[in-house]
Amino acid sequence: MILTERDIIGRYFNVPELAFPRPEIELGPGDDAAILHVPEDKRLVISTDALVAGAHFPEGAAAELIAYRSLAVNLSDLAAMAAEPLCFTLALTLPQADSQWLEAFSGGLAELAREFRCPLIGGDIGRGPLQIAIQVHGLCRAGHELRREGAGAGQKVYVTGWVGDGVLALAGLGVATPDIAFNAPLEELPEECRAHFHAAYFRPRPRLGFALAAAPLIACAIDVSDGLLGDAGHLAAASGVGIVLDAEALPYSPAARRCAGEESRLRAALCGGDDYELCFSSDPANESRLMAIAADLDLPLTRIGEVVAGEGVHCPGADVSGWSSFDHYACAVEG
Amino acid sequence: MILTERDIIGRYFNVPELAFPRPEIELGPGDDAAILHVPEDKRLVISTDALVAGAHFPEGAAAELIAYRSLAVNLSDLAAMAAEPLCFTLALTLPQADSQWLEAFSGGLAELAREFRCPLIGGDIGRGPLQIAIQVHGLCRAGHELRREGAGAGQKVYVTGWVGDGVLALAGLGVATPDIAFNAPLEELPEECRAHFHAAYFRPRPRLGFALAAAPLIACAIDVSDGLLGDAGHLAAASGVGIVLDAEALPYSPAARRCAGEESRLRAALCGGDDYELCFSSDPANESRLMAIAADLDLPLTRIGEVVAGEGVHCPGADVSGWSSFDHYACAVEG
Repeated sequence: MILTERDIIGRYFNVPELAFPRPEIELGPGDDAAILHVPEDKRLVISTDALVAGAHFPEGAAAELIAYRSLAVNLSDLAAMAAEPLCFTLALTLPQADSQWLEAFSGGLAELAREFRCPLIGGDIGRGPLQIAIQVHGLCRAGHELRREGAGAGQKVYVTGWVGDGVLALAGLGVATPDIAFNAPLEELPEECRAHFHAAYFRPRPRLGFALAAAPLIACAIDVSDGLLGDAGHLAAASGVGIVLDAEALPYSPAARRCAGEESRLRAALCGGDDYELCFSSDPANESRLMAIAADLDLPLTRIGEVVAGEGVHCPGADVSGWSSFDHYACAVEG
Repeated sequence: MILTERDIIGRYFNVPELAFPRPEIELGPGDDAAILHVPEDKRLVISTDALVAGAHFPEGAAAELIAYRSLAVNLSDLAAMAAEPLCFTLALTLPQADSQWLEAFSGGLAELAREFRCPLIGGDIGRGPLQIAIQVHGLCRAGHELRREGAGAGQKVYVTGWVGDGVLALAGLGVATPDIAFNAPLEELPEECRAHFHAAYFRPRPRLGFALAAAPLIACAIDVSDGLLGDAGHLAAASGVGIVLDAEALPYSPAARRCAGEESRLRAALCGGDDYELCFSSDPANESRLMAIAADLDLPLTRIGEVVAGEGVHCPGADVSGWSSFDHYACAVEG
């Protein structure tokens, strides 16, 4: 069977499960462009992330997991801005048109799209090495977005969920993660732990529910994609302050505590990234309300540090000199 | 020299030539997302196109040309909607960080970005096979966009510029283009013709000036990316009408007339694509005004057919049975 680009779009993408209507979408897929109406009191929040086979996920990963992760990491950027998801576009290149793969991929997108009421409004399909470039669009009330700037001395620093699982999961997938490893070969880890890390990597949960509910209490926020040292560093730099992290306070999942040594966990949390949790600062007076919001969502929330005058990120409980964030380009040396 | 992702963005992308301010851009590059203000009487028009090395441009093409073409074909979609460019995002994957390449690439983007006042507002850089996914954002007054639907029997069909040059240029670049060829080996073509085709391919001109000025006179529009048979077919299908094209009327560039036989030119125009001209329909009463707008812009404008009751695209002057549009996926056969 020959699938043209038009066939692929019609069968797998411009389908009711994925390209469903919303009142703000005046024109969806099928023309030269899509058209959005942004209500006057709202702002449009835009973020884009591209995932490349072999770099951002293993070549042979299941299509529905690749799709889920691709949309989830984009939605996580909306959570970090406290923007409500509106819609997304997809630029997909794939080496061949395989109908089973496409159906699974479409299904993985649709699962999150429906959960967060964030339909597909357009895109582009081409032939090439497998790559998924997604752009998400969200809405927030004018002036109510969360930015990286806004941290002030005396505020406390928090993180949702667990940290370190993302890069520990990468280690489990066979990707080179220097100085981060499980304390036994993957196949000897308990089955429930392997399942936990697999889900942490492929099915990260965008913290939208928490972000939207807690936004009025939050001074600044970022999602943890480079590791806490790097991401808290972005908050500190944008806000012109310093941040002191308490290494003893970092929240690890039960699976991480069981399967990785203290040093690996600490490096994974501080330098690993791929956790897609929210890291933010807030006035200490808000703490009980923040904890109540998280508890309502069954989401761990942990105070991990504080904002101080000065600059940079400090972690007195750990010797982090010479540690640096995971960087997708740090090993490129032509210049 | 080691270039991190942050270095690359700071040196080549988040620079004043490319990420310049506009009042509608409330937050540009540097946070988890960008923020746009869309005025209440306007709509946001969104289109995305990804270009893959080896499929959409030759692997070794000059960086500034790849950049120019990538942004130009996206802006062409805004022209087809009669939307004024606002800003764009870029998801770039590249196999290595080469500072000369990046500087040239950034310069190619900046040239068009400044001409059309369309700054970069964010993006993503990753390592992988060379690919450029751009999303453009435009503004149009509510209800004033041009769609593919709107053609009515009795209207005339027009095309801007020349048709066929895009795919003839591809043939010149050594890409397989069945039944489309120059009438001599490339190296024997006159230098000015080779320069013409090179520019037609790498520096297509988005017809924004014409589209914005002529939009009130136009019933429906599309940009020619698949060839006139396919693209006029999209207008016909969306509008529930037929379109009759006059093969004798198709406008070829002097270079195409000089370097390609009649059959190659016709196939290139009807089935080739990559021309990024505007094809549209309009009431015959508007013709002199349309011609005057085009003349003011020094842009050829040609009446190439008419809208009729019925369906499909017909071209009585040419035997096009069995011809079909160029499709980036038509040769994929797994399903």
